[in-house]
Amino acid sequence: MPEKNRQILLRRRPKGWVTQDCFELVETDLPKPGPGEALVRVHVMSVDPYMRGMMDDAKSYAEPAKLNAVMPGEVVGEVTESNDPSLRPGQFVLGDLGWQTHGVARARDLIPIDPAKAPISMWLGPLGMIGATAWIGLMHIGQPKKGETVVVSAAAGAVGSLVGQLAREAGCRTVGIAGGPDKSRFVTDVLGFDAAVDYKSDRFVDQLAAATPDGIDVYFENVGGAVFDAVLPRLNRFARVPVCGLISRYNAPEPHPIRDARPFLVNRIRYEGFICTDRMDLWPKAHAAFGMMIAAGRLVWRETVAQGIENAPAAFISMLKGGNTGKQLVKLVP
Amino acid sequence: MPEKNRQILLRRRPKGWVTQDCFELVETDLPKPGPGEALVRVHVMSVDPYMRGMMDDAKSYAEPAKLNAVMPGEVVGEVTESNDPSLRPGQFVLGDLGWQTHGVARARDLIPIDPAKAPISMWLGPLGMIGATAWIGLMHIGQPKKGETVVVSAAAGAVGSLVGQLAREAGCRTVGIAGGPDKSRFVTDVLGFDAAVDYKSDRFVDQLAAATPDGIDVYFENVGGAVFDAVLPRLNRFARVPVCGLISRYNAPEPHPIRDARPFLVNRIRYEGFICTDRMDLWPKAHAAFGMMIAAGRLVWRETVAQGIENAPAAFISMLKGGNTGKQLVKLVP
Repeated sequence: MPEKNRQILLRRRPKGWVTQDCFELVETDLPKPGPGEALVRVHVMSVDPYMRGMMDDAKSYAEPAKLNAVMPGEVVGEVTESNDPSLRPGQFVLGDLGWQTHGVARARDLIPIDPAKAPISMWLGPLGMIGATAWIGLMHIGQPKKGETVVVSAAAGAVGSLVGQLAREAGCRTVGIAGGPDKSRFVTDVLGFDAAVDYKSDRFVDQLAAATPDGIDVYFENVGGAVFDAVLPRLNRFARVPVCGLISRYNAPEPHPIRDARPFLVNRIRYEGFICTDRMDLWPKAHAAFGMMIAAGRLVWRETVAQGIENAPAAFISMLKGGNTGKQLVKLVP
Repeated sequence: MPEKNRQILLRRRPKGWVTQDCFELVETDLPKPGPGEALVRVHVMSVDPYMRGMMDDAKSYAEPAKLNAVMPGEVVGEVTESNDPSLRPGQFVLGDLGWQTHGVARARDLIPIDPAKAPISMWLGPLGMIGATAWIGLMHIGQPKKGETVVVSAAAGAVGSLVGQLAREAGCRTVGIAGGPDKSRFVTDVLGFDAAVDYKSDRFVDQLAAATPDGIDVYFENVGGAVFDAVLPRLNRFARVPVCGLISRYNAPEPHPIRDARPFLVNRIRYEGFICTDRMDLWPKAHAAFGMMIAAGRLVWRETVAQGIENAPAAFISMLKGGNTGKQLVKLVP
């Protein structure tokens, strides 16, 4: 029996929390690459918070995902068939093939990677969009200075874990906000943050204050909502807030307002949304920084890995609820 | 009878709106300048929105004004007595002498000005702190580009009127938000904005949309509150919001929240508070720009002038309620 392609289609748009019935697993024939194209067998695929925004049919920074089409996303896989001289079978590549076991793309849209340099999943992390996001937000917008206090929310997540390590390399006091005691311990004991604060604790506001005795100079925003309510009064003069994500908002029925504009004026705070793809010119700097940390054995990179395309929806939903530690991935090849 | 000094003291801190009984007019003997000091007869004094913040005993960017002391503020006056060789009687100076008819200061804290170059009150406007504020907020933080749409609130006020004219010089579409039909006409017909929108109109939100068909690229924030609620959904990708003031907030019992953080992320908006004194290095650029506009006869500068120190509190209260068009001043010399 010839090998089949297995795909996850977006069947309906969620209201509030994403549910399994938004998706459907289908089997199709393997696609055939046309001229200049290659067929890729996916080894590992990425599920990320930004995909929640694409499931809505609303104006956002990314185009909405199409109904009844394959869910979009980045993958790493192996070329199995190629109609372009630049790619040979066996070559590992990074590409936007979406949630499926096999995909066809133009060779020029596939980025060759070298598994000898780092585990292939690192290209879905520090050496990919995640790394670019962490670096651009912290270094370019946040501009941390030695001795300053940097606070990161979703600190045990993919972006947050990289932000904290970059901030430590910049000589900052690093404080991570995470959900629950296990993640908090991971943030300090494994990632090496100076302190962790559990946003699920009743004493979150007091604990954040205790962990930031000199206030907060850079707050890397991944969460929004009640977490930002607690952060705002602790922001120092000239604090910077790179706004990378608002995961608390994605499934909420109503916006959670920012309580008061006055601290932004009084303390001359900069609050700035960003998307890593706006500054492709900075990606080489980001990847050089992480490449050196990887080569020196100084980068901690944790993954939560689901097995099999059929488990991609569950892995995605779990990640949106904070079920992951580090980067959430789905492995399609044992 | 020897001449007396007349001073306005801060007697109590306001709750909500400022009232006359926060102030008291007192008469004292003329002060005597010590070594290195000069006595100044004040010709014109400035009342500004930021002084409302100083009346509170709360952490803000400026030190709180002291109870039972002279209300602080900038003035222009004439040296009548000097114990420093750098200043002679008859010299006009700009200084921080506060709300009084006469004041003593160190000569080195008084800035000599030349009434032949521009009317003396211009140093309380485009050639002073007001001009620096307008320029730094618009040009340094807002960074308007030719063809973009710049919206300014409190557009008929001192800072707003300068921002609009700078934006027009930068080749932008300029839209002013002001209170009432008279101020709206002033904004277009006198200041030369492309459009004006009356925030007191029932149709404010629709009118703002009609006046900004291509959205808003720079919003110069002087007001906050409901005005910003209307502006936020119209901000374009990569919009900049220099936050100069929040006058709707100064007398409000409760903060008016920013409704939603999501547009800042989706549209990569920069929202940034600033105070002109943080960037003294940029003042020469600001004053050079306005000096050239004045010399070329291209700057419109309107003043609302109260007469006599006894009317300073009323002028200040009126200005906080939007009673002024252009810069609110108090003239102390007929």
